[in-house]
Amino acid sequence: MTLHELAKELNLSIATISRALSRPEDVAPPTRQRVLAAVHRHGYTPHGTSRALRTQQTRTIGVIVSDIRNFFFANLVKAIEDEAKANGYALLICNADEDSAKEETALQLLLDRKVAAVINCSTGANPDLLRAFQKSGAILVDLDRESGLTNIDTVVLDNKKGAELATQHLIDLGHRDIATIAGPQHLSNARGRLAGFSEALSGRGIPVKNRYIQFGTFLQQSGFACAEKLFALRRPPTALFVANAEMAAGVIVFLRERGIAIPRDISIVSFDDSFWARYMDPPLTVVAQPMEKMGKSTMEAVLARLRGSKPVQRLVFTPELIVRRSTDSLQR
Amino acid sequence: MTLHELAKELNLSIATISRALSRPEDVAPPTRQRVLAAVHRHGYTPHGTSRALRTQQTRTIGVIVSDIRNFFFANLVKAIEDEAKANGYALLICNADEDSAKEETALQLLLDRKVAAVINCSTGANPDLLRAFQKSGAILVDLDRESGLTNIDTVVLDNKKGAELATQHLIDLGHRDIATIAGPQHLSNARGRLAGFSEALSGRGIPVKNRYIQFGTFLQQSGFACAEKLFALRRPPTALFVANAEMAAGVIVFLRERGIAIPRDISIVSFDDSFWARYMDPPLTVVAQPMEKMGKSTMEAVLARLRGSKPVQRLVFTPELIVRRSTDSLQR
Repeated sequence: MTLHELAKELNLSIATISRALSRPEDVAPPTRQRVLAAVHRHGYTPHGTSRALRTQQTRTIGVIVSDIRNFFFANLVKAIEDEAKANGYALLICNADEDSAKEETALQLLLDRKVAAVINCSTGANPDLLRAFQKSGAILVDLDRESGLTNIDTVVLDNKKGAELATQHLIDLGHRDIATIAGPQHLSNARGRLAGFSEALSGRGIPVKNRYIQFGTFLQQSGFACAEKLFALRRPPTALFVANAEMAAGVIVFLRERGIAIPRDISIVSFDDSFWARYMDPPLTVVAQPMEKMGKSTMEAVLARLRGSKPVQRLVFTPELIVRRSTDSLQR
Repeated sequence: MTLHELAKELNLSIATISRALSRPEDVAPPTRQRVLAAVHRHGYTPHGTSRALRTQQTRTIGVIVSDIRNFFFANLVKAIEDEAKANGYALLICNADEDSAKEETALQLLLDRKVAAVINCSTGANPDLLRAFQKSGAILVDLDRESGLTNIDTVVLDNKKGAELATQHLIDLGHRDIATIAGPQHLSNARGRLAGFSEALSGRGIPVKNRYIQFGTFLQQSGFACAEKLFALRRPPTALFVANAEMAAGVIVFLRERGIAIPRDISIVSFDDSFWARYMDPPLTVVAQPMEKMGKSTMEAVLARLRGSKPVQRLVFTPELIVRRSTDSLQR
C-alpha cells in the first residue's frame, strides 16, 4: 500500500497523514487515531514493504508490566530481554500500574512504534481493545495474567496448584483456622490462587469461612489493612496464605507493630520468592514461580509466532513450595 | 541525504544497504557496522528527512542499566518511564550486566533503532565508543555512573557525601575499628563511596587500615566473601559500611551462618534503601538515594537537550542517612 492509497482510503491529504506519523501532537486526536489504526491495519511503511519486512525493521518487542519495581516483573523482563537480545530484538517497556487507562495508553504507544509484538501482563480490563489490535494483525502474548482473549499465546503459572501447595502445607502442620489475603479478583492469577486455597480446604473437609478470606489489591498497604481485619476477629487465624509478596510485606509490618510473632503466633506462606524472603527473620516459606523459564518461554513463543508458526501455545508452569521458618506446627 | 548518496559514499550497492537495515543477519558484520555508522552519522532516513523529524518519529529513549532486577535500577527506570510517557516517549531497556561487551552491544542495538537519546548507567569501559556516538550527534546522558566523557549531561548522587554520612554515624557511635566493603573501582560511584569512607576516618584522626578495606563486585556473593575475609582477621571490625544493597545481603547471609549478631557484634550501614532493608530484623541503617527525583531529572535533561538546549547539565543529588536498628553504640 502506498501513501497515496492510504490518503484516498482515509479521505485525508498526504500531508496530514505524514504529520500524524511524524508530529502526532500537531494533529487532532481523532484524526491521528484513524491514521494510526489504518497504518497498523495495513502494515503500511514508507516503502510499502511487506509486513514481514516491516517487522524485521523494528525488531522491537513491547512489554507491558504492572510495575517494573516489583521484583517479579523485573525478573520476567530480565529473562525476556536476555532471550530477545540473543535474537536481535530490543524491548520497549511500559508500566500499566494495574490501571486500564494506562494499559490502553501503553498499547497505543507500543503500536505507534510498530513493535513486532506485544507481551502483556494484562489488567484484564481492555478485552475489546486487545481484540481489535489482534484483528489488525498485531502479535499479542499474555503473560502472568490472562486477558480473556481466545486464540492468544499464553504463558502462566498454575496458580491454583501453587495455592493448594501452600494451603496443604498449613493443613499438614495441624492448622485449621487458616485465612487468606487474596488478590483483586479481576486478575486471573488472583482468581486461581483463591480457588486453590478454597479447594485445598474443602478437599480436606475443612469449612471455608468467609471471614477468613480478605481481598487486597496486590499492593503493600492492603496487606497491612487485611491483616488488621483478621486480627480484629474474635478468633484470629493461626495460619495465613498471602497471595503475593508485596501484600506479605504489609502483613509483616502489621505483625511487628502488634508484637505478634511468626511462626509462634501465626504461620505465614506467601506467593513469590522475592529477593528479601530469604533474608527476613524468620525467612519466609513461599510458593516460588520459575520466573526465568517463564520469561524465556514467553519470548520463544513470540519468536515462533514471528516465524509464522500457527498453533496457539498455552504454557502453564508448575510452582514450587519452599519451606523456610515462617511456618510451624500448630501450637496448642 | 538520499540512499543513492549513501551508497556512493560507502561504495556499496543500494540493495546491500537496504539489506543491512532490514535483514541485518544476512549481511557480514563489518559491512553492517559501516552502514549503521554512516546511517547514524548522517541521520539518514528513508525519506531523507531532517534529524529533528527523525527524532520525533521514533520518540523512543534507550536506557542501559546494569540489571533491571536490582531494585535501584528498577526504581530509576520507573521514574524515567513515568516522565517519558507524560511527554509521549517510550523506553527501550537494555541490561549491560556490568559487562563492557554487553554495553557495546546494547549501544549498537539502541542506535540501530534510531533512539532519540541514550541514558547510560555506564560500565565506564567504553569511552571511545561513547565518544564516537556522541560525535555522530547522538544524545547521551550519564546516570548513576560517569562514563568519563566531557560535555555530557550527567545525573549522579554525591556518593562521597553518602559514604561520609555513613562513616561519621559509625564514628559517632564510638566505633574505631570500622571496615568497608567497596564496589569495583572502575565505577565512579564506587570510587566516590570509598573516598568518602577514607576521608571521614582521616578527618576524625582515625587511621585508614588497608585490611579493613575489601573490594567487592557490587554483587551478593562478593559481599559474603568480603565479610568472610574481615571476620578471619585477628581483630575483626566492630562496624561495617557496605557500598551497595546486594553486597549487604551477602554480608547478612554470612553473619547469620556464623551466628554473628547485628548490631551486638557488628554495626552495619549499607548504601541504598532497598525495599527489604526496612523488613529485615533488625531493620537496616542505610544511605538512601532520591531515586525518583534522579530518574525524573534525567528524563528532563534528555527532553531539554532534545529541545535544543545547549548548556551541559551536571546534577548532583544529596543522599540521606536513615538510621534504623542495625547500628548501635560500641559495646565495650
